[in-house]
Amino acid sequence: MEQERPDPAGPEAPRPGLSRRGLLGLLGAGAAGAGLGVAGGALAGAIGGTPGDGGGSARSFPFHGPHQAGITTPVQDHLHFAAFDLTRSATADDLRELLADWSYAAARLVQGLEVTPEGAVGGPPLLPPDDTGEAQGLPASGLTLTFGLGPTLFRGEDGADRLGLAHRQPALLEPLPLFAFDLIEKGISGGDLCIQACADDPQVAVHAIRNLSRIAFGRARIRWAQLGFGRTSTTTRAQATPRNLFGFKDGTANILAEDAAALEEFVWVGEESDQAWMRGGSYLVTRKIRMTIENWDRVRLQEQDEIIGRDKGEGAPLSGGGEFAPVDLALRSTTGGYVIPEDSHVRLAHPGTTGTRILRRGYNYVDGSTGIGQLDAGLFFISYQRSPAQFAAIQGSLAGDAMNEYIRHISSAVFAVPPGAPEGGSLAEGLFG
Amino acid sequence: MEQERPDPAGPEAPRPGLSRRGLLGLLGAGAAGAGLGVAGGALAGAIGGTPGDGGGSARSFPFHGPHQAGITTPVQDHLHFAAFDLTRSATADDLRELLADWSYAAARLVQGLEVTPEGAVGGPPLLPPDDTGEAQGLPASGLTLTFGLGPTLFRGEDGADRLGLAHRQPALLEPLPLFAFDLIEKGISGGDLCIQACADDPQVAVHAIRNLSRIAFGRARIRWAQLGFGRTSTTTRAQATPRNLFGFKDGTANILAEDAAALEEFVWVGEESDQAWMRGGSYLVTRKIRMTIENWDRVRLQEQDEIIGRDKGEGAPLSGGGEFAPVDLALRSTTGGYVIPEDSHVRLAHPGTTGTRILRRGYNYVDGSTGIGQLDAGLFFISYQRSPAQFAAIQGSLAGDAMNEYIRHISSAVFAVPPGAPEGGSLAEGLFG
Repeated sequence: MEQERPDPAGPEAPRPGLSRRGLLGLLGAGAAGAGLGVAGGALAGAIGGTPGDGGGSARSFPFHGPHQAGITTPVQDHLHFAAFDLTRSATADDLRELLADWSYAAARLVQGLEVTPEGAVGGPPLLPPDDTGEAQGLPASGLTLTFGLGPTLFRGEDGADRLGLAHRQPALLEPLPLFAFDLIEKGISGGDLCIQACADDPQVAVHAIRNLSRIAFGRARIRWAQLGFGRTSTTTRAQATPRNLFGFKDGTANILAEDAAALEEFVWVGEESDQAWMRGGSYLVTRKIRMTIENWDRVRLQEQDEIIGRDKGEGAPLSGGGEFAPVDLALRSTTGGYVIPEDSHVRLAHPGTTGTRILRRGYNYVDGSTGIGQLDAGLFFISYQRSPAQFAAIQGSLAGDAMNEYIRHISSAVFAVPPGAPEGGSLAEGLFG
Repeated sequence: MEQERPDPAGPEAPRPGLSRRGLLGLLGAGAAGAGLGVAGGALAGAIGGTPGDGGGSARSFPFHGPHQAGITTPVQDHLHFAAFDLTRSATADDLRELLADWSYAAARLVQGLEVTPEGAVGGPPLLPPDDTGEAQGLPASGLTLTFGLGPTLFRGEDGADRLGLAHRQPALLEPLPLFAFDLIEKGISGGDLCIQACADDPQVAVHAIRNLSRIAFGRARIRWAQLGFGRTSTTTRAQATPRNLFGFKDGTANILAEDAAALEEFVWVGEESDQAWMRGGSYLVTRKIRMTIENWDRVRLQEQDEIIGRDKGEGAPLSGGGEFAPVDLALRSTTGGYVIPEDSHVRLAHPGTTGTRILRRGYNYVDGSTGIGQLDAGLFFISYQRSPAQFAAIQGSLAGDAMNEYIRHISSAVFAVPPGAPEGGSLAEGLFG
């Protein structure tokens, strides 16, 4: 602790913050032999200057803390989610260094700063810029960056202990099982690592993923990525409940940031974990759920209400009351049937049916159109939970959901989300040594 | 003009506004035999209630007027663009009816209203809702809807006069030629019709395209569609110049709404048109331009500046001055070469080189990732001009652009954009009869 640090001067010394590998990523493969010691003009690297009018905002959320941001943070309107695979030759040291580089850059980006102090235009003119520059002039825009580790990081598909970290794999971190009606496409599922970027301005989220991907050059590369808009959950009481592309309010009964007891019980990993490095973290599940919206749009209003178990206008449970009234699963109509139908989404997903809860953070998506004239659209589902078993219990219950006629789960992924990095530290340091 | 209108009562009478076919679209094929005369509860169909916090805004732009909105309108941050093909069996009457239905619905949508007065929840419970409902609670959000007609609407690919409207085809409305380096994918190019939806909230733009597509059921269907964000142009002096995904300011020298003379000269179709129905309209060109951003990001800052002809920080021309300083194409450096390089984008696109100008209205896009770990991203270029020849002159000049190493034009389309619909009227009425 008291050791003297090596002198950072000299032609090969990295600039503070990013590792030599991280800086190489910014230069690209072709420039690997270029002189890294060339000092730039070191202009101030703040992105936030003249704000654009792009829906961005000056609000910012700190990167460091006991939990990672982007879980209970009030849900921003725009998502860029990316899953990464480590390169085959990567080692545990490479992973540690990459997580340190990402932590350094993320702590800057969420403040509305460029990826390094030199940024897009403050470096030497004869080197590629450190920052790609498309967020110059945009404010922090409430950006959060949330990082996760997939099961394949610990054991490859052949079961091999690829990084010598298999003993650090949490017992709960296993690929999700196949559920009823799953039509999972492997190319947009799984991943060794993930980054969830949420922001008030999509350009700010895209800029973050792009620059973090660049830093990873030679160590990890994007496996799949997804843009989303129109958050389909709230995590604070102050936010109005948004609507999904079925036209219904979504996320009414979500776990909220104000409910500390529910967060402890259902979201944050505690002392029960077999891996100390995961305490204070969470487990992240993503599911790309394509909606056959043209078929849905032909369903009668009353039937739509019965499939969901709520009314399309207010989002009120069919058992009565307003949007936030408790769902009365036992109530029967005068004809004897349940008012909340037995195959309704709200009944099958309800804690009274599943025995558990999750924190949802999904987004609507539109990926253009299908070859047969339909919108290629749906819900990019994201949930956080103390154990993936909570998601599995709910998804298992939804096997009987009448909504299944109108949706297809086409991607699936699960990640261990470590706790937040301490001030001056990096993510998942407890994973190593 | 003075004729008495037929009595709209009776079981088969359409509700005011949408044609019977348009209403059938809302019900879908399966419901074609259902009783249309069943009157709904006719609740107020205003979408704007409790605004979400989705970046939406209360501002609205009128649908009716001498020119269509969405051309000189201050550029909103989000785009959903869709191209449609007429069904094979469609007639000129079908087209006329479709344009009337679209005009009726568009005039409502841009006010923040639902697609019909019955909307998502005000109709009969035993019929599918008229409106899909995902914009309930969202304000108008500055939505504009701009409609265009493609060359294939007049003559099919076999040259046939498919609707009996070939004599109404403007001479200028021909498919664009192939340009240098074009790698056009047919499935995301062309189209008989198009709708450009721009809004402050992507959910509002998506809602509009989806509901207009639904109304078209049986008459036209989506051929291709594209989402965009982070407008890459301004059309008013009040807006800051945004940045494209090369990290450079884009649209600095655009034609602005305040410049009436330039609009007359370069954007609005005038008396010169061989088709009276196009006067006051414009021609729309779209080009999906994929950027190989990972390659671009490895280019030295100085070389990036020279490829563009402006500096990456301020967007100032390399010939000197601030962002809005005139570009001095003649200026030479002390070593004798041009300061604005001969193969720079700004020189080759400059009116001093091309002899013409266009009004640009493009957007950034990210469509996930490629199979080789790169972002599938770029610029969805949109321009409006008095003649497609203006675009062709500029694009021809850009054959020598040094930027071509980092971009690929993968889609192309051209549409005739009729003038705005008069109050109480529909788009392109002059095309018929």
